[in-house]
Amino acid sequence: MNGAQAVIRTLVGGGVDICFANPGTSEMHFVAALDDVPEMRAVLTLFEGVATGAADGYARMTGRPAATLLHLGPGLGNGVANLHNARRAAVPLVNVVGDHALAHKRLDAPLESDIDAIAGAVSGWVRRSLATSAVGEDVAEAVATASGAPGQVATLVLPADVSWSEGAEVAAVPGRRPAALVPPAVLDEVAGVLGGSTVLFLAGEAVTEEGLLAAAQVAAGTGARLLATTFPTRMARGAGVPDVLKLPYAPQAAMKELAGVEHLVLVGAKEPVAFFAYPDLPGRLAPEDCAVHVLSRPGEDGVAALRALAERVAPEATPVLSEPHRPELPTGALTPASMADVVGALLPERAIVVDEALTSGIHLSAATAGAPPHDWLTLTGGAIGQGLPAATGAAVACPDRPVVSLQADGSAMYTIQALWTQARERLDVTTVICDNGAYAILAGELQNVGARSGGERAGQLLDLGSPGLDFVALATGLGVPATRATTAEELAEQFAAALVEPGPHLIDAVLRTGS
Amino acid sequence: MNGAQAVIRTLVGGGVDICFANPGTSEMHFVAALDDVPEMRAVLTLFEGVATGAADGYARMTGRPAATLLHLGPGLGNGVANLHNARRAAVPLVNVVGDHALAHKRLDAPLESDIDAIAGAVSGWVRRSLATSAVGEDVAEAVATASGAPGQVATLVLPADVSWSEGAEVAAVPGRRPAALVPPAVLDEVAGVLGGSTVLFLAGEAVTEEGLLAAAQVAAGTGARLLATTFPTRMARGAGVPDVLKLPYAPQAAMKELAGVEHLVLVGAKEPVAFFAYPDLPGRLAPEDCAVHVLSRPGEDGVAALRALAERVAPEATPVLSEPHRPELPTGALTPASMADVVGALLPERAIVVDEALTSGIHLSAATAGAPPHDWLTLTGGAIGQGLPAATGAAVACPDRPVVSLQADGSAMYTIQALWTQARERLDVTTVICDNGAYAILAGELQNVGARSGGERAGQLLDLGSPGLDFVALATGLGVPATRATTAEELAEQFAAALVEPGPHLIDAVLRTGS
Repeated sequence: MNGAQAVIRTLVGGGVDICFANPGTSEMHFVAALDDVPEMRAVLTLFEGVATGAADGYARMTGRPAATLLHLGPGLGNGVANLHNARRAAVPLVNVVGDHALAHKRLDAPLESDIDAIAGAVSGWVRRSLATSAVGEDVAEAVATASGAPGQVATLVLPADVSWSEGAEVAAVPGRRPAALVPPAVLDEVAGVLGGSTVLFLAGEAVTEEGLLAAAQVAAGTGARLLATTFPTRMARGAGVPDVLKLPYAPQAAMKELAGVEHLVLVGAKEPVAFFAYPDLPGRLAPEDCAVHVLSRPGEDGVAALRALAERVAPEATPVLSEPHRPELPTGALTPASMADVVGALLPERAIVVDEALTSGIHLSAATAGAPPHDWLTLTGGAIGQGLPAATGAAVACPDRPVVSLQADGSAMYTIQALWTQARERLDVTTVICDNGAYAILAGELQNVGARSGGERAGQLLDLGSPGLDFVALATGLGVPATRATTAEELAEQFAAALVEPGPHLIDAVLRTGS
Repeated sequence: MNGAQAVIRTLVGGGVDICFANPGTSEMHFVAALDDVPEMRAVLTLFEGVATGAADGYARMTGRPAATLLHLGPGLGNGVANLHNARRAAVPLVNVVGDHALAHKRLDAPLESDIDAIAGAVSGWVRRSLATSAVGEDVAEAVATASGAPGQVATLVLPADVSWSEGAEVAAVPGRRPAALVPPAVLDEVAGVLGGSTVLFLAGEAVTEEGLLAAAQVAAGTGARLLATTFPTRMARGAGVPDVLKLPYAPQAAMKELAGVEHLVLVGAKEPVAFFAYPDLPGRLAPEDCAVHVLSRPGEDGVAALRALAERVAPEATPVLSEPHRPELPTGALTPASMADVVGALLPERAIVVDEALTSGIHLSAATAGAPPHDWLTLTGGAIGQGLPAATGAAVACPDRPVVSLQADGSAMYTIQALWTQARERLDVTTVICDNGAYAILAGELQNVGARSGGERAGQLLDLGSPGLDFVALATGLGVPATRATTAEELAEQFAAALVEPGPHLIDAVLRTGS
């Protein structure tokens, strides 16, 4: 067995049977070995950021890593932005980065670069596999490490000759170690501070349905308030699920939400901080005199901790759940508000919503709170261009669930190539482009940072209207059927049609903003 | 003056008056300062790989650095592949990478990452600017370092508060130090080995018109042969210029070209090595018993050395120059050969050819050798996705020259967003997509590396035909007028029309391969 065959068989044996790939010459033995291991499904992408973002979306929906197959340092570089997002989302992910054969490294061939340095910036674990005889063990450790609690990005650098040489062996991936339990003393501490001026700040497992139910029981019994992190990895929402507000993105709004809080209890979350620094605002968003407590760290069993807490402080309490309710189908102008109402009115059962709508998405949470239960995936790491790839990966992970990809226009253009993979794999993804013809979020930020605004040359750098992007043409060029909606009625009609037809669709929702 | 203003003014003072930009929140003060310094032209890109590739193309044509403006680690990551190419091309380039304010760094906000590690992998010089009072000096050093001989990538990490704080000063950029001269003893050594079994292997300045003329004079007088590096940064070609063969990409062909060579003289070039390792081939391409001599290293004055050598060994010799000649306009099937003949027949005066045609481009050199003088830019670093951005930057650099961008289809999809910037800036770029519906180069590599080929699942990973990419639709969506050619006559007609119309055009050349 050659190294590449052992890599793929070890991956498959460890439950990693999807590989989002953009291979080059140094990965050709991996590609050839796909014919020997039919259990591995390779999904081709046109750009590495699609592969890494898809692996992120896949992991969010399955809890298991997908592999990526990337070509040397530049290929890994192209995947960095979405690996950053995956790292911040604490999802399991295994990168296989091909490299030159060992003897070729010293020749400083044109594609030689410091792969390990780039990998280190986005990975929790990096290893360069140096011997075919050990490559199976290396892969097994990559999978096990990626799959730990919390999940992380593991990057295996795989020299070409380690792939092509014979003498490799498949290694067994050890079973996943369960998450650590929160010690009783911590439960004691938190139980002692629950009350009307306390907020439970939820992320990770704490915003699954189980986590939210337990947290809502605590809230119902103690008067504590619930808030979720601004950009959760995967949040359960909809009718029958507690409706928990996500902390607003804008620091002023977030600080208002946290004003008066005396005890902030972190459950799988980090202390809330502003996304960016602003000249006259603090970076920490909780009040200065607020006491911060940690119920569970990322990777600890936050759901069990919440359940234990509920059992202890609110055994009889009934969590408040979202009632089933949907907005009326709107008519007239297509605005962020009416777009949200269309989504809320029509969101199908068990939908996976991938939300990179940014400024155009501010009404989405309210409009969908009573829709049928669904999962909500967000831009955890803040590096735009994750939405279309993550929707792709989520659809690969859950072929029986509809994926709704709500995508800002400027951000869509970083990884628009994802649409081609959606077409190629016939994935059931409905993309709605929130088309406002601008980097709208930056117009706000230009003011927020205190920069003098209004200058014409500065404004040009935030404008996407010259020339306008034609997303219908772009989707068509990538093999995805597409339509354009300029009224709420058109969006409703096209959204409903896309949801019942199989395969991917894109709707260019031309938004009237400022209204 | 705030830090951002000093950054831009120092850049402009140092001759860096183009900035290829994809900014985010941490760059908003830089953006705002554009209104204060009208001498700086900011060119917006939709994706950072376009910005870095454009800066590479700009530098190849001007010899001066452009700046890029990138957003934090993920933005730099998106630029890595083309920064790798720029590094390998030894062009001057200054990255300005915004980062969080200093006090915000310790909060580990979502977009926090190890920018410096990523920057180090693609830069010859990295500095984090830590004080507004010194930021002008930091920028001046970045420009000076980038502009040295050889050129290099200099990356300045610019924290937001260093940008927004007052108290900055403009610094003067020192003049460019001339390239070092080759010592007489080296000339003695090389002069002693010139003859029929000697090859002068040329790269960098040695493949400018001046360099080629001097090298051809040496060749004419001594019987030495000339070969150019496989992927030169910028090579002078056409009628009146010596026609020098580029070493073939395929290692077998390259070794054949070098067979029997007893003395290999490197002029601005590194010793030729295979792009990739293959199981049964050596990495070094010159014969084992070939003596390698270095006339000039990258960054030394290779042109002066070649002239001195010519003066010494061949003062009376006349260099052989390409005669003006063009292929006939072809008819019938559109193939790599007929495509090359169309380009050769119609290439305009003073064209800049950006060649990322890869396998489809094998006939281009022969077909254009007698065309009017032109410059030829290639994929020096081997990271595909450089062509469209480099064409964009070359057109910004030389608004009075036509740019012809010959682009493989699969490679085009890494940075297709470049077309939008071409439309926005109304750049005179004619793009020909070499559309063969496959990663054709990899089909060859799959065999070259000795992998069993023919497997269906492996073959699928090299196929771009399912669904087919519609480059006319993609270009239209990005604002570039586009047509499709399926015969040689259609390509000729469309190519001629595109060359006379101002602004960018794209032709999807649907190639019949294997004929």
